[in-house]
Amino acid sequence: MRTRNKPWAKDRIESHPHYIVHEPESKKGLWAKEFNNTNPIHIEVGTGKGRFVIEMARANPDVNYIGVELSESVIVMALERLIEADLPNVKLLNINANDLTTIFDKGEVARVYLNFSDPWPKNRHEKRRLTFSSFLDLYKTVLPEEGEIHFKTDNQGLFEYSLQSFSAYGLLLTYLSLDLHKSGFEGNIMTEYEEKFSKKGQRIYRCEVRYPKES
Amino acid sequence: MRTRNKPWAKDRIESHPHYIVHEPESKKGLWAKEFNNTNPIHIEVGTGKGRFVIEMARANPDVNYIGVELSESVIVMALERLIEADLPNVKLLNINANDLTTIFDKGEVARVYLNFSDPWPKNRHEKRRLTFSSFLDLYKTVLPEEGEIHFKTDNQGLFEYSLQSFSAYGLLLTYLSLDLHKSGFEGNIMTEYEEKFSKKGQRIYRCEVRYPKES
Repeated sequence: MRTRNKPWAKDRIESHPHYIVHEPESKKGLWAKEFNNTNPIHIEVGTGKGRFVIEMARANPDVNYIGVELSESVIVMALERLIEADLPNVKLLNINANDLTTIFDKGEVARVYLNFSDPWPKNRHEKRRLTFSSFLDLYKTVLPEEGEIHFKTDNQGLFEYSLQSFSAYGLLLTYLSLDLHKSGFEGNIMTEYEEKFSKKGQRIYRCEVRYPKES
Repeated sequence: MRTRNKPWAKDRIESHPHYIVHEPESKKGLWAKEFNNTNPIHIEVGTGKGRFVIEMARANPDVNYIGVELSESVIVMALERLIEADLPNVKLLNINANDLTTIFDKGEVARVYLNFSDPWPKNRHEKRRLTFSSFLDLYKTVLPEEGEIHFKTDNQGLFEYSLQSFSAYGLLLTYLSLDLHKSGFEGNIMTEYEEKFSKKGQRIYRCEVRYPKES
């Protein structure tokens, strides 16, 4: 997501450590303590303006949500929304997805959400797609055995690529919709992007995949 | 495909054993002899009026094609088309797909095509879908190690189901298009159904899957 640079974003982020956790690597293995409960933790990688995690958190108070976002000037918008929502079961992390494994122990994350990830359509940028095999390695490192990724996008090319990437990795496809908004799927929380693109009449693709049992 | 019953179909079929092979189980292991060459044999399960196998055979003279069709009154239409095309590398079989394993040896079929198969949309008819696990067992029995299924359909529900069925079976997804006619895929031969549905503006879905190495 491209946004105007916000020089004040850093200060704003640092002034709300309760929502945007500082030095998250120091919480590794201690996230249940951070949330004051042992509810499952679901993370969204590339959380953008945060609508998805915040609305999911509101709808599912027994689940803890962590939104991960690299861009300061984007996460600060999620922060504003979160301050207003004032929910105990959401945290935000201003980190690179590559650092997930320094922040979570094996199995500490119960589910990974990827929503409308950057498609990086050029072949030479394949490695940047959040469904590339190296990212699947990262998620595996923080998920439990048979952990799940839930993925949705309006981008046909990224979805085609991702289903093949999941298959090559040996993930089991447990849910698939090629037109989510006409599928009868219940409890869908729309992201900002999703609302915008579906209003234009574009289809939303969605799938769930599960890591195999480790032998 | 529902068609008017054709009482004369049986006679017509029996009068052309060169094209619609009689007692095909007697050819098991001997199909190369039947074609007088050792070219790979690709079969289409549910060949309908035969346009796909006949046009593929015309475009690929170094491949032998066998179209399998249960309905007498449908296969007789494929026969008329084949008589007119007069190609040496196409045969038709008026058999039930369940009998494939009595007709072909392991590895005798190099590739399986499924095109616009009956979607059997009701859950209780799942077992009749040509991408149900019991059919994947049958194809495996006649394909070589790492044999491939190439599948296309306009039916979203069947395609969603089939990708999940392939995944659960452990097949590797090696090609995927969620809008074939806009994908740049070359050499596509349209079936009768495909032409009709795509003219109505419906998307065509296509995938290729590969059986894993046998260990």
